[in-house]
Amino acid sequence: MTGTRADLLISGGLVLTFGGDKEILENGAVAVADDRIIAVGEASGLGRQIGANEVLNASGCLVMPGLINLHTHAAMTCFRGLADDLPLQEWLHEHIFPAETLYLCEETVYWATLLAVAEMIKSGTTTFCDGYFYEDGAARAVIDSGIRAVLAQGVIDFPAPGIPDPGINLKAAEAFILRWRDKSSRLDTSIFCHSPYTCSPETLIGAKEICREHRVLFQTHLAETQAELDETQKRYGRRPVAHLEALGLLDAKTLCHHAVRVNEGEIELLAHSSVGVSHNPESNMKLASGVAPLPRMLAEGVNVGLGTDGCASNNNLDMFQEMDTAAKLHKVHQGDPALSSALEIAAMATYGGAAALGMTAIVGSLEPGKKADIIIIDLNQPHLTPLYEPCSHLVYATRGADVRDVVIDGRVLMRQRQLRGIDEKQIMAKVREIAAGIGRKQ
Amino acid sequence: MTGTRADLLISGGLVLTFGGDKEILENGAVAVADDRIIAVGEASGLGRQIGANEVLNASGCLVMPGLINLHTHAAMTCFRGLADDLPLQEWLHEHIFPAETLYLCEETVYWATLLAVAEMIKSGTTTFCDGYFYEDGAARAVIDSGIRAVLAQGVIDFPAPGIPDPGINLKAAEAFILRWRDKSSRLDTSIFCHSPYTCSPETLIGAKEICREHRVLFQTHLAETQAELDETQKRYGRRPVAHLEALGLLDAKTLCHHAVRVNEGEIELLAHSSVGVSHNPESNMKLASGVAPLPRMLAEGVNVGLGTDGCASNNNLDMFQEMDTAAKLHKVHQGDPALSSALEIAAMATYGGAAALGMTAIVGSLEPGKKADIIIIDLNQPHLTPLYEPCSHLVYATRGADVRDVVIDGRVLMRQRQLRGIDEKQIMAKVREIAAGIGRKQ
Repeated sequence: MTGTRADLLISGGLVLTFGGDKEILENGAVAVADDRIIAVGEASGLGRQIGANEVLNASGCLVMPGLINLHTHAAMTCFRGLADDLPLQEWLHEHIFPAETLYLCEETVYWATLLAVAEMIKSGTTTFCDGYFYEDGAARAVIDSGIRAVLAQGVIDFPAPGIPDPGINLKAAEAFILRWRDKSSRLDTSIFCHSPYTCSPETLIGAKEICREHRVLFQTHLAETQAELDETQKRYGRRPVAHLEALGLLDAKTLCHHAVRVNEGEIELLAHSSVGVSHNPESNMKLASGVAPLPRMLAEGVNVGLGTDGCASNNNLDMFQEMDTAAKLHKVHQGDPALSSALEIAAMATYGGAAALGMTAIVGSLEPGKKADIIIIDLNQPHLTPLYEPCSHLVYATRGADVRDVVIDGRVLMRQRQLRGIDEKQIMAKVREIAAGIGRKQ
Repeated sequence: MTGTRADLLISGGLVLTFGGDKEILENGAVAVADDRIIAVGEASGLGRQIGANEVLNASGCLVMPGLINLHTHAAMTCFRGLADDLPLQEWLHEHIFPAETLYLCEETVYWATLLAVAEMIKSGTTTFCDGYFYEDGAARAVIDSGIRAVLAQGVIDFPAPGIPDPGINLKAAEAFILRWRDKSSRLDTSIFCHSPYTCSPETLIGAKEICREHRVLFQTHLAETQAELDETQKRYGRRPVAHLEALGLLDAKTLCHHAVRVNEGEIELLAHSSVGVSHNPESNMKLASGVAPLPRMLAEGVNVGLGTDGCASNNNLDMFQEMDTAAKLHKVHQGDPALSSALEIAAMATYGGAAALGMTAIVGSLEPGKKADIIIIDLNQPHLTPLYEPCSHLVYATRGADVRDVVIDGRVLMRQRQLRGIDEKQIMAKVREIAAGIGRKQ
């Protein structure tokens, strides 16, 4: 290793690798060449062995893999706070769907996704998994910003934003895959079928077939609410998970969002089929959907990661806050303060998300050979003092605003909280313009 | 008003007064003379009428009353993250109580309270209501830092930190009141009886008598856990609320913390007796104590405010995050997304806290004649863009780190996130020293 040249050396911090051995280096270093991590070790050793073109001093900081936000509708930042505290159907049908129909277009999705990316980078997320309409706008935002993402064109059996004729929704989704799949190593394509109650069995099967053909991820909302359960039961005589199973959709390249209303047998099925599941506690709380059986899913070995869901039901994309909520909600729900430990939750937000996306070969931990997606947290703050246990701090005390620097794909995209590569002021101005059209107070 | 001179004029922001009419000024201003607000109005008008020695430009910001943290054990910052994810009894008896016994002293409490104050000011809290041991240390921290607080010496019928002989616990508490009650207009004294199961009826009655004599607030934990309910029932043949009622302790100068395990009749009693109640959802979640019936308490008109509890069970003092959790928890718990609206929760964290403390004459809203406790939030950030509804943003999107400036008692104690009057670095260094003694990883 001596004589090796790195492009970037992050040196001197408390390094949490989140690799298989959950290694913690008190005074560690991470060396990056091009877009990859080439070494992780003690600062003293690595500093001697490896010369670097740029050094980030992480002394007094915590260094860890970037967070993976497993469930977003990123462009919904433009509806942040438009309608809150309303019954679900009123919220959806009188506010969100009409706003989407009236105001979405590729430009809106481009700028609103860039806004989401700015917010995500500033709160330590380096990979997000998205599904929405006009997803070409999101793809352009990912290419332009430097973040990593899995992006899915949305599919629903109704007239949808950008796809007025549902008869061509699968064609449009496949066209999206073909347009973007080779454009960037940071962008993976996907198809997002809205749900088992808004997509017919034919649509679901057809979408999965396209995903299989192109080896991309198939996504769907699943078992989010009691109403969905009742509807699926009524229409197909089976619960949502059984329905997807019967259609042959459950495998390691399927990612299901929410899984709130799942019973023991269904949890086993999700585990055995290696399906990915996103847990989105804040959205489930705000929409009163219910509490997903996370401790049982973790115990059964379900591939669970953490997500924020869209900004209309959260209303932010801060994964640190989501970790905190995830750790606490299940304790009170089950009456057991030992459930959902800080380490389990932090692992979900990093390696767990990578596993659910089938991306553990490239992200989710700090290990040589993986992509250099790294965040540096400034521990030198009152609310992070003192420090007894790093994972406790990550989950119960750290907030997105504590992230000082962010490296994605080997590039420093935030330094001392200043974004590089995207113009935060321009993005906010553009989204404010869009919101002024959408209405109410701005 | 023309020709009036102010010491400080905050001008140009979106001003939320949280006064009786919940006024919102799109381009407002607040004028301060000495320690008081002297005018609130449109920036254009006030700017012409009032000259000021110092002007804070709040353009692009939200201006509101400082938050009131109704329940803290401030010095427990020194145990932040020491022990998490443990069964309650193990956490308390094997970690927290031994650490308190071994490591608390007045100096520890002084520095750890200063750390809490730094954290609170940096996250928009301007008044906190505290109860702990060695509370003289907390009083010195409040005097030195410039924050406003109600501070209570803790009383428990066991040997306690600083009071090895429980026989003198009431005397010690009264001595605390006498030592500090005239020291500062920012400091009110109080007595905090730990709970109905750790204090005898005689102790509770005696403490309340002292409080009545000195016209100060009486505090106690109340109905926090099922175990407490069972214990009180077994020992006194009645539930905790009935017990306090029977002892004659429920009145407007009593503040009860938690009120998790209260039924309909007890909620009515709490409302009719004008008792103050602190709601602490994050602590209740983390310790798996249960979910307090907040929507019912609000509907019945109970004097409820919001608190974080101590850092060992949260693990931060960020009232913005506490608001978010409070707004979401009851929605999912009751299955109704319209419960606990953003406005209700934000009002609890401001005016509601003042009401529970009996301090609405001086804090809780921006109105002429009240003390100048004001916070300024920087809205010009990705996660606060766009803005449709200010209260939604406060509760669902804003975090403590978004607070830019803090005024307490007319003094600017934070400007552009730099604390004035206390030395943040020295405080963190001191608490790190203390924590190094307490042990484990530091």
